[in-house]
Amino acid sequence: MTDFAATKAHFHIPDGLIYLDGNSLGPMPKSVPARMQAMLQDEWAEMLIRGWNQAGWMDQPRRVGDRVARLIGAEPGSVVMGDTLSIKVYQALASALEMVPDRRVILSDSGNFPSDLYMAEGLVKTLGDGYELRVVEPDAYPEAITEEVAVTLITEVDYRTGRLHDIAALTEQAHAAGAVAVWDLAHTAGATPTQVAACGADFAVGCTYKYLNGGPGAPAFIYLAPRHAETARPALSGWLGHEAPFAFDLDYRPGAGVERMRVGTPPVLQLTALEAALDVWDIADMADVRARSQGLTQLFIDAVEARCPGLTLATPRDPDQRGSQVSFRFAEGYAAMQALIARGVIGDFRAPDIMRFGFTPLFIDEDDVRAAVDVLEEVIRDRLWDRPEYRTRAAVT
Amino acid sequence: MTDFAATKAHFHIPDGLIYLDGNSLGPMPKSVPARMQAMLQDEWAEMLIRGWNQAGWMDQPRRVGDRVARLIGAEPGSVVMGDTLSIKVYQALASALEMVPDRRVILSDSGNFPSDLYMAEGLVKTLGDGYELRVVEPDAYPEAITEEVAVTLITEVDYRTGRLHDIAALTEQAHAAGAVAVWDLAHTAGATPTQVAACGADFAVGCTYKYLNGGPGAPAFIYLAPRHAETARPALSGWLGHEAPFAFDLDYRPGAGVERMRVGTPPVLQLTALEAALDVWDIADMADVRARSQGLTQLFIDAVEARCPGLTLATPRDPDQRGSQVSFRFAEGYAAMQALIARGVIGDFRAPDIMRFGFTPLFIDEDDVRAAVDVLEEVIRDRLWDRPEYRTRAAVT
Repeated sequence: MTDFAATKAHFHIPDGLIYLDGNSLGPMPKSVPARMQAMLQDEWAEMLIRGWNQAGWMDQPRRVGDRVARLIGAEPGSVVMGDTLSIKVYQALASALEMVPDRRVILSDSGNFPSDLYMAEGLVKTLGDGYELRVVEPDAYPEAITEEVAVTLITEVDYRTGRLHDIAALTEQAHAAGAVAVWDLAHTAGATPTQVAACGADFAVGCTYKYLNGGPGAPAFIYLAPRHAETARPALSGWLGHEAPFAFDLDYRPGAGVERMRVGTPPVLQLTALEAALDVWDIADMADVRARSQGLTQLFIDAVEARCPGLTLATPRDPDQRGSQVSFRFAEGYAAMQALIARGVIGDFRAPDIMRFGFTPLFIDEDDVRAAVDVLEEVIRDRLWDRPEYRTRAAVT
Repeated sequence: MTDFAATKAHFHIPDGLIYLDGNSLGPMPKSVPARMQAMLQDEWAEMLIRGWNQAGWMDQPRRVGDRVARLIGAEPGSVVMGDTLSIKVYQALASALEMVPDRRVILSDSGNFPSDLYMAEGLVKTLGDGYELRVVEPDAYPEAITEEVAVTLITEVDYRTGRLHDIAALTEQAHAAGAVAVWDLAHTAGATPTQVAACGADFAVGCTYKYLNGGPGAPAFIYLAPRHAETARPALSGWLGHEAPFAFDLDYRPGAGVERMRVGTPPVLQLTALEAALDVWDIADMADVRARSQGLTQLFIDAVEARCPGLTLATPRDPDQRGSQVSFRFAEGYAAMQALIARGVIGDFRAPDIMRFGFTPLFIDEDDVRAAVDVLEEVIRDRLWDRPEYRTRAAVT
């Protein structure tokens, strides 16, 4: 059984703050500053260019990828780090489309994170030639998976409502229709125990600055199913995905397996912070994290519904259908969230009216939830946002 | 006049090492560890998500971009940081191709860095439909700029030979032929005083871990000429390039100016290191750096040719036709470079036979050059690579 007091001790949480925004940017693990100093002083400063071999920088995207693989149920050697989630969405989509050359439709839903849709829109415009991004409402998604669809692109957990899609069923349905399944695990990795290998996903991508606490701008990951690993074309074909980067050949030949999905020089400083942040998973079990997350979200929902009339639950009531966040709709949600933040409870706001709260069991406990609800009740009851001292600028991203 | 003793004092250079590989990975500026600690402890740890506004993380790609702009002769507000150079090459090419919809040829040269060619190759494969990457020898480049060419893609300084292309003449020629000019400034930024605005470049991209000393994996930059800034389509259209990222619209609308070339979440840790590294330019003048670089490379060429028979100069003899590096061809160059590194003089090797030495006046002086030649002479004369103790693994990248 995971000792959550021990995991909480891994993180720096500022005094007096209840941080319910770890689903947007995780807090700093206490080990990061020392690890970063060691990397700067012992590696960059002393090894200089030799660090690529001597300090293992060159292998870092794969080494860290293997640690992320364990958290998303992926096969060892099937995940590599790099770039940003938006870039990895593009790369996965461009690769996936080539696997179904006779089709032209990327199917997504309106609950997908906008950047995923923008990248897909950019790709279909670049391709021209009848390519299309088709966006339907989440509830209409299953029936929209027709034999016109080349690629399905869904974020497993809806960033607004926290609704958890049935990744196994939708992947099976995509395959039955002859489509390739690309999953965005931005709100999954480190939050819910998804199983990308078992569910048969073709590609999966995600970020590491949310529930994996890698810091602002932490790199993305990409999963490529081993069955495609020798045939997929990376589309974004950079030198570090080449079979022999230092041969400096003029022609591209993809590297073995998921290594081909690497593009340019890896962000070693960001990867160093992320690698330190992943250590907490040595003492945390994903199933325990999920069970505790469901308990915390339930506690929050019950308390807010009892004490904050006017807020309407936007997250599924069934704990198995929600991720690790809870969202409430509230017409004055933007102003109310500003007041809440000013009072030391940090959540975030998503247009047009969603107050969003992330529950991250590695460092949030029942006492935090109760204390947060106390403040939220006061904010709503007393309309604190009407007072000038509570009008601060809201947190972003 | 720049005080080069003062600029040298900005950097940590390990004792006993002569570092002639700053053209591959610059050394660590001494200010980086403290700046990184401040960012981690005062910003990430204490501000958490609020750092995006309070610490200015969101504006950092543009703020740092303006500092890079000054070094490449770009207009204020025309450069933004992000991603890797490979990704920015792709983005510039995909955007540029759309400006010339009736043409299908990307023209590059065989002296371009392979990753640029791989990314272009990946893009033309994704596009299909007759798109073509045409690669010619550097000497044949000018006459290859025909009216078939949609986009010219050249690295201003050839990574192997150090040859400096005439960016003004080639850009003018590209425009006269109706093509769009994309420049890779990987070996230019911080090394030679190029003037992208004056020469009329349409796009320019580059990295910051070489002569700008931003550290391993430091982000890339992209320049978009202001005359295109309201019409260019970013192709890699991510949420942070959107006109209103936090409106979470389903449709993409490009942001104002070069901001549209932003894609995903910026790498704040890497940008923090880079921002500290750029401070040295407050006391360094680019024209002085260039003059000193030409002196150092000339000193090295003269001494090596006098004292190391067997090495053949691969770099142009005319100082105005070379960048800030010197390359010699030597059949046993790989082994010789290993021995040289083992003796504390770090250069690098580029297949098939190039020994490459970078001269970075911010921290290399005449004494370093003379001492390096002493060691090189001994290595070559005594064939030190034949002795087992000098067979170390060569540095990469």
